[in-house]
Amino acid sequence: MTAASHSEAMTGGASVTGRSVVTFGETMALFGAVGTGSLAHTPTAQLGMGGAESNVAIALRRLGVEVSWFGRLGHDSMGDLIERQLRAEGITAGIIRDRDAATGLMVKERRTATTTRVWYYRTGSAGSRLSISDIPEHWLEEATLLHITGITPALSDSARETTLECVRRARALGVPVSFDLNYRGALWSPEQARPVYRQLIAMSDIVFAGADEAAIAVGAAEPVGLIRRLRTLGPAEVVIKLGDRGTIADIDGILHTVAAIPVSVVDSVGAGDGFVAGYLAERLAGKPSAERLQTAVTVGAFACTVPGDWEGMPRRDELGLLTVGEPVAR
Amino acid sequence: MTAASHSEAMTGGASVTGRSVVTFGETMALFGAVGTGSLAHTPTAQLGMGGAESNVAIALRRLGVEVSWFGRLGHDSMGDLIERQLRAEGITAGIIRDRDAATGLMVKERRTATTTRVWYYRTGSAGSRLSISDIPEHWLEEATLLHITGITPALSDSARETTLECVRRARALGVPVSFDLNYRGALWSPEQARPVYRQLIAMSDIVFAGADEAAIAVGAAEPVGLIRRLRTLGPAEVVIKLGDRGTIADIDGILHTVAAIPVSVVDSVGAGDGFVAGYLAERLAGKPSAERLQTAVTVGAFACTVPGDWEGMPRRDELGLLTVGEPVAR
Amino acid sequence: MTAASHSEAMTGGASVTGRSVVTFGETMALFGAVGTGSLAHTPTAQLGMGGAESNVAIALRRLGVEVSWFGRLGHDSMGDLIERQLRAEGITAGIIRDRDAATGLMVKERRTATTTRVWYYRTGSAGSRLSISDIPEHWLEEATLLHITGITPALSDSARETTLECVRRARALGVPVSFDLNYRGALWSPEQARPVYRQLIAMSDIVFAGADEAAIAVGAAEPVGLIRRLRTLGPAEVVIKLGDRGTIADIDGILHTVAAIPVSVVDSVGAGDGFVAGYLAERLAGKPSAERLQTAVTVGAFACTVPGDWEGMPRRDELGLLTVGEPVAR
Amino acid sequence: MTAASHSEAMTGGASVTGRSVVTFGETMALFGAVGTGSLAHTPTAQLGMGGAESNVAIALRRLGVEVSWFGRLGHDSMGDLIERQLRAEGITAGIIRDRDAATGLMVKERRTATTTRVWYYRTGSAGSRLSISDIPEHWLEEATLLHITGITPALSDSARETTLECVRRARALGVPVSFDLNYRGALWSPEQARPVYRQLIAMSDIVFAGADEAAIAVGAAEPVGLIRRLRTLGPAEVVIKLGDRGTIADIDGILHTVAAIPVSVVDSVGAGDGFVAGYLAERLAGKPSAERLQTAVTVGAFACTVPGDWEGMPRRDELGLLTVGEPVAR
Amino acid sequence: MTAASHSEAMTGGASVTGRSVVTFGETMALFGAVGTGSLAHTPTAQLGMGGAESNVAIALRRLGVEVSWFGRLGHDSMGDLIERQLRAEGITAGIIRDRDAATGLMVKERRTATTTRVWYYRTGSAGSRLSISDIPEHWLEEATLLHITGITPALSDSARETTLECVRRARALGVPVSFDLNYRGALWSPEQARPVYRQLIAMSDIVFAGADEAAIAVGAAEPVGLIRRLRTLGPAEVVIKLGDRGTIADIDGILHTVAAIPVSVVDSVGAGDGFVAGYLAERLAGKPSAERLQTAVTVGAFACTVPGDWEGMPRRDELGLLTVGEPVAR
Amino acid sequence: MTAASHSEAMTGGASVTGRSVVTFGETMALFGAVGTGSLAHTPTAQLGMGGAESNVAIALRRLGVEVSWFGRLGHDSMGDLIERQLRAEGITAGIIRDRDAATGLMVKERRTATTTRVWYYRTGSAGSRLSISDIPEHWLEEATLLHITGITPALSDSARETTLECVRRARALGVPVSFDLNYRGALWSPEQARPVYRQLIAMSDIVFAGADEAAIAVGAAEPVGLIRRLRTLGPAEVVIKLGDRGTIADIDGILHTVAAIPVSVVDSVGAGDGFVAGYLAERLAGKPSAERLQTAVTVGAFACTVPGDWEGMPRRDELGLLTVGEPVAR
Repeated sequence: MTAASHSEAMTGGASVTGRSVVTFGETMALFGAVGTGSLAHTPTAQLGMGGAESNVAIALRRLGVEVSWFGRLGHDSMGDLIERQLRAEGITAGIIRDRDAATGLMVKERRTATTTRVWYYRTGSAGSRLSISDIPEHWLEEATLLHITGITPALSDSARETTLECVRRARALGVPVSFDLNYRGALWSPEQARPVYRQLIAMSDIVFAGADEAAIAVGAAEPVGLIRRLRTLGPAEVVIKLGDRGTIADIDGILHTVAAIPVSVVDSVGAGDGFVAGYLAERLAGKPSAERLQTAVTVGAFACTVPGDWEGMPRRDELGLLTVGEPVAR
Repeated sequence: MTAASHSEAMTGGASVTGRSVVTFGETMALFGAVGTGSLAHTPTAQLGMGGAESNVAIALRRLGVEVSWFGRLGHDSMGDLIERQLRAEGITAGIIRDRDAATGLMVKERRTATTTRVWYYRTGSAGSRLSISDIPEHWLEEATLLHITGITPALSDSARETTLECVRRARALGVPVSFDLNYRGALWSPEQARPVYRQLIAMSDIVFAGADEAAIAVGAAEPVGLIRRLRTLGPAEVVIKLGDRGTIADIDGILHTVAAIPVSVVDSVGAGDGFVAGYLAERLAGKPSAERLQTAVTVGAFACTVPGDWEGMPRRDELGLLTVGEPVAR
Repeated sequence: MTAASHSEAMTGGASVTGRSVVTFGETMALFGAVGTGSLAHTPTAQLGMGGAESNVAIALRRLGVEVSWFGRLGHDSMGDLIERQLRAEGITAGIIRDRDAATGLMVKERRTATTTRVWYYRTGSAGSRLSISDIPEHWLEEATLLHITGITPALSDSARETTLECVRRARALGVPVSFDLNYRGALWSPEQARPVYRQLIAMSDIVFAGADEAAIAVGAAEPVGLIRRLRTLGPAEVVIKLGDRGTIADIDGILHTVAAIPVSVVDSVGAGDGFVAGYLAERLAGKPSAERLQTAVTVGAFACTVPGDWEGMPRRDELGLLTVGEPVAR
Repeated sequence: MTAASHSEAMTGGASVTGRSVVTFGETMALFGAVGTGSLAHTPTAQLGMGGAESNVAIALRRLGVEVSWFGRLGHDSMGDLIERQLRAEGITAGIIRDRDAATGLMVKERRTATTTRVWYYRTGSAGSRLSISDIPEHWLEEATLLHITGITPALSDSARETTLECVRRARALGVPVSFDLNYRGALWSPEQARPVYRQLIAMSDIVFAGADEAAIAVGAAEPVGLIRRLRTLGPAEVVIKLGDRGTIADIDGILHTVAAIPVSVVDSVGAGDGFVAGYLAERLAGKPSAERLQTAVTVGAFACTVPGDWEGMPRRDELGLLTVGEPVAR
Repeated sequence: MTAASHSEAMTGGASVTGRSVVTFGETMALFGAVGTGSLAHTPTAQLGMGGAESNVAIALRRLGVEVSWFGRLGHDSMGDLIERQLRAEGITAGIIRDRDAATGLMVKERRTATTTRVWYYRTGSAGSRLSISDIPEHWLEEATLLHITGITPALSDSARETTLECVRRARALGVPVSFDLNYRGALWSPEQARPVYRQLIAMSDIVFAGADEAAIAVGAAEPVGLIRRLRTLGPAEVVIKLGDRGTIADIDGILHTVAAIPVSVVDSVGAGDGFVAGYLAERLAGKPSAERLQTAVTVGAFACTVPGDWEGMPRRDELGLLTVGEPVAR
Repeated sequence: MTAASHSEAMTGGASVTGRSVVTFGETMALFGAVGTGSLAHTPTAQLGMGGAESNVAIALRRLGVEVSWFGRLGHDSMGDLIERQLRAEGITAGIIRDRDAATGLMVKERRTATTTRVWYYRTGSAGSRLSISDIPEHWLEEATLLHITGITPALSDSARETTLECVRRARALGVPVSFDLNYRGALWSPEQARPVYRQLIAMSDIVFAGADEAAIAVGAAEPVGLIRRLRTLGPAEVVIKLGDRGTIADIDGILHTVAAIPVSVVDSVGAGDGFVAGYLAERLAGKPSAERLQTAVTVGAFACTVPGDWEGMPRRDELGLLTVGEPVAR
């Protein structure tokens, strides 16, 4: 076993492909309140990290897919923490440690058992200073797929240019592009997001969106209507995530619906990212559409059962743990 | 903005009236076990505070109502903690720090996830030494409403006299009186409580009671029967709290029933106090009966979702958070 | 009150019999992760103890039954912890502290809210070195019942011999024998277990088993079929535990089914042991079969509501707490 | 090994005598703040127990001395906790669970790293209701020594009578009496304490006191002067505890001084009780005066190194751990 | 007792003056690591608050001085937390809740037991948007003293203008001005700070500085030389803080030196602010210079003994607790 | 930046060499009690990892040295945790995940503030099953140094053979060998260790030992005598670690003594490993002897200031933090 390879034990025995899914974006430090209530009554917090693209990367890696991520972190202990975790997960990362800006930060409050509020400290952060020159050399040439989100283009002009440049290069090289809209109201307005969304959707092969997010791009409609309009823009695979109501997807012209797996939700943040990873992992493994979606909802369910955005992502040999619907007293 | 006013941010943008709801009673320090099981197996506890009247006061304040509370605390760190919290919540408080008696104390065990046991250390406490001379001067003259509970008259002879004196003065000044029976078996027997309850009900405009509590006053009956008998004693508004089965009320002769909001219950203590505050806040705002009751069950539901008796009480701009029935994975 | 007696307060007012239920086995130290997720993400653990027989012993003791347990512990702080807890529970214990072997250890991970994984460090442990000479003198002569599990015979040759010797002596003295199959896949295979199970079942009066465990002994079948086959081997009382689907039993030729009590499951480990203790306590008190099974499911439900294997076991005066199905907001 | 005996492992291999030291008093539940600062800023507390006599009893037990303690506890979970701990420590206890009064309670604040403040909730507690009829039958007949403190006579009239009665019976039976003055300003004034102290000192064989406490009994003086005056009242062994300045003692007419062992103090409460136990254990083992005092300061030092009043008391085989003055990096 | 007054119990019995010390600045939310090590190994943090001026305000308030503070907070839960704490401490605060900017944030790491690292997230924060129009009306007219720090003028142009305007108005009204240089390297360079420092020193009556900070203003020199140069700029009272080496001051032309009080340092952040408050409180009470400095070092020592920047500040009746140099085992 | 390289931010800006120090051994999971006292009173534990060789590897890595480690871990969550941490630290590891044995385990008790007790569960562990075939191919060819400890040869016959084989290969390739005796009394006796120690010392270039450990190999003597005897066996560099008394070394025939850096010791385990890493890192960087030893004591001091065996190891740019002897209140 060589140092570069991810041990089988850590991926649940999945066979690991030589080439990588590639992704990039901003990963932030995250102070998450441990208790339930407003922050004034829940002073204890856990420091972790979160970022939609690195969440997807970790979930893919645990399912046995090689992943390469790049992004910027500050030259601070928050950056050290994130760099350690990405290494720990075996993500082949092109990390730039920026001496001129701090690592972005999120604060997460659990106002009630089922209501989360998040505040961002990411203006001018290292992660938002992403630029075209940060793209690792030859990075896309060995890629099996490029995954992007709608968060990165909202971070800064240079981050948007970087996103577009990566997508252009991928298309030029014939690397399929996966795009999760991931709307963040703290970063831009629907009006600002719309043209960027439409431009990126038109260049993507696979699109993931919540119903509200899809509506930003193509106008409000029922899920099937949203799918139809999105497909018109170009992508052959469109997946609408409906949270605990499951998912509806048009894959190569065939409509699929899948129910969510009922679980006791501890923290639903990251569920959408797990969903995306589950879909992509099976697609890369050449699995049929129904299996892709089934793994997608399973990984999404896992992410809900554990505090933190990515910590609960399952290894391939753990996927079966959530098929039993109910706990049994022994 | 002046120092005396409560900032808008803390009350959810509610407009604050100049005159106050007034209330009084005993607020105690509270050691609450963090874990589930008997105390012998849950050695970690959180120190907080609790008191039915101050719970109502805090909930009212967060809904934008000025509140004035008075009571006695010991000259000890438990008293300091309570004084700090009441100040923090913006309660205009007439606190007497008693050098001759300790702040009362409660110990709360979570025997099972849904069973709580409480032990009181309040015999001879500062809070029980309330007397007529403690009533702040001109206190009732500016009041919009007087809220009392059935706990205070059970604490001591002087506390009972203080309760009656406040009610008498309120009536003389035309200030409406709200009364929550709040039966405490550790303080007196149903036989001892009955005559006091009946005397206070007869002098009140609004009465809140659980079905068991109402039965102490007027004998066991179905909810509607309880309401009828209570109304006969005088009050124009009678609200029977039925816990997770909702509430039934006769308000100015019209019968209303409202279902409870289903929530994942973390700690139901304080839910009744939140209910009362929700009702009173809307009544003071001139809202119709149905809206009063709807806010009442909403605030009660909030109090259940957070550990502690009062910490989960919502600000006005948070009331909407609990209308979504189910968590949605994102 | 003498030192030897267990105070009434600790057993919920149950009358205590002079003679003892006797049991023996390995009790281990237990590091249980506090959080949910894989151990790599839940670094905080609580140190406790666990052992099927001592779980049963503690549950019996809290229900007012005198119990005597024997076993081996290492000469280490883990052994001290276990010895202290058994003393604390009032178990009349014949503990041997072994200077040549360590106390066994378990590590418990809560992978998801409803999935637990356990790793054992018990090879060559003090507890596995049990031998016939460890049986306390005159131990079975005063016994009202001998309870054994299928774990002890799997620990070592000498432990298996000790089990058989105890059963033989009990039978010779007319002491009834209760046997819980308790299959542990980490210790032996179904093939290894089968003949031992059959030998012990044939010598027992009461047999407890999960459906899967019973199938190891008598081959797979529907619950009623399993019961029939087990009864053919000898025991007059056969109880099949079906977890949250309840239980089905043949007691002296009459078939009984009982539903499980629905509770919010915190930790289901130990529920089976509580079930056994509930059944045996009522049997020793001369209660009819239906009452034995009802107390069995109630004690099992209690064990599920509290973290830890035995900490949640109820005293007799607490049994009523779980009859109310639903939490009620006050 | 029989159930009644304390395992060798738990006492560090000390030989256990058949007859007991006897003691009695009030043991209370204790909420101790985990953090440093006033309680308003250190909301997390640990629930434990404390009582000067039970602290001495536990320390003696760990040094291999049989001990019998009696006292009253409430019929509540705080009482259960204390009963469990005393059982766990192998104290042969004559516990009365009082249905008419609560277990006493202490709250402990660590205002600064070296300043502790304690508040008591013990007025009318179960522990203060001790009466002559609570003395276990034949209790003193088998005793090797009676240990009393100056706390118990301050609790109530009946507790004072019980103390005097025990001392009288001990003297009648020729059982030596050990008395630790243990002044508690919250319970009585120096003027109230003086005559009781003098009466008890006159009936004691061994007296322990801090310099301030001794001054209450015999007037202020230098340590040697205090000793001289105390000896005049009767006792042959007088030990003045000077905290971190060590101790000075007159034992059978010979003056001894011993320096304290310098340790990093975590919580000095209980150090005086450990000191007493160290002295008494060696006296009972027939050790010379110097050795008694050396063990006394060692056990006192141990009690300082661990949070809680008694948890850090050493077993006999641990006494050597504190002889190395300084930590050594390995 | 009226609502506006701070209870005597909370200030240690100090008499409260009617007029206020006035101060202003940025108070931030603070995530402080609980453990020792880099953040990657100490994931648990406590959420609190900190700000040099509010630290001084709280320490003054606890010593019995009325204080009025103004500043800006975001419309978020971090702002709620700060507003609650200032209310709790009885600071008469003119808080502006800014809807267009977030509350500033600090992250504090304890790299070793004696090394702290802090990262700020305050660029563009609400607190930095302070402007002249935020000064409460008539604010300085009733003031007894204006306290400013060198942090506020470094936050933004408008914050610097606000600082200068307040100082100008104070001088016009004859209100004495106290200035603590408080250099923050993350906000500006020594070159940027120098002219602002010199301008503010020239307009101040009392100046506090560390030796390094003084050197920024007047060039490096020995403490006495620094004092001489600073006095030349105008102020009649110059106090150089030398940390654990104590302090040296020229007060109205007389030189004083005071040793630090040796304490076990838990967290030295806030000690300088406590020092300033101790000095100012005694000055306002008309105490002589030596007493001012003695209280200053005592309050500074208190702040070191407790985690958090301000939580350990003493009430007047607690000042005596730190005169005993060493802990004494009891 | 490529994935294989360790970011500069994580090593404090140290230049990273292309070739690696190589080492191997057993790394175990570690449950460390959080509190002080015996385990029975400190139930909360933190799960981490420890292993002398991986501690050295991590400390070297943080100082900018490439390191390659190999060893065996079980196919369990404890193994996952260790694999993640080694990845996180950028150790190029040749990990074998053994399906037939569990990851070894340690339990660590803090009996007093300065006394630690450890129990091992490593008999038959995956880590002890190391064999010659586990040595990665071409592993020593690119090595700059081989570091071994005296623990590995004590684990099993195959582990001893692996150690000897590695040393032999290193010598054949001209790779210098560093040997830390690291005696573990739980694994073998001094008599068993002596011949192995002497054989390995004779084949080493650099030897590290405590005085007691050296005495096992060459008989008891004063430090200088120990050094003389060890040098006679072959190595040109002999370093005797004397804990808080510093160190004494003979390096190429010249005797050096260095004092320890006085720090507030939190956990001294790992200090010896940090010492070794500090020495080796400077030696590899071509620094003179005095500098090697100075960095050695500095890294050792760092390891003492933080809980855990390796978490406190410093990056190169942090080495200066411990030169300031005393904390200074600000």
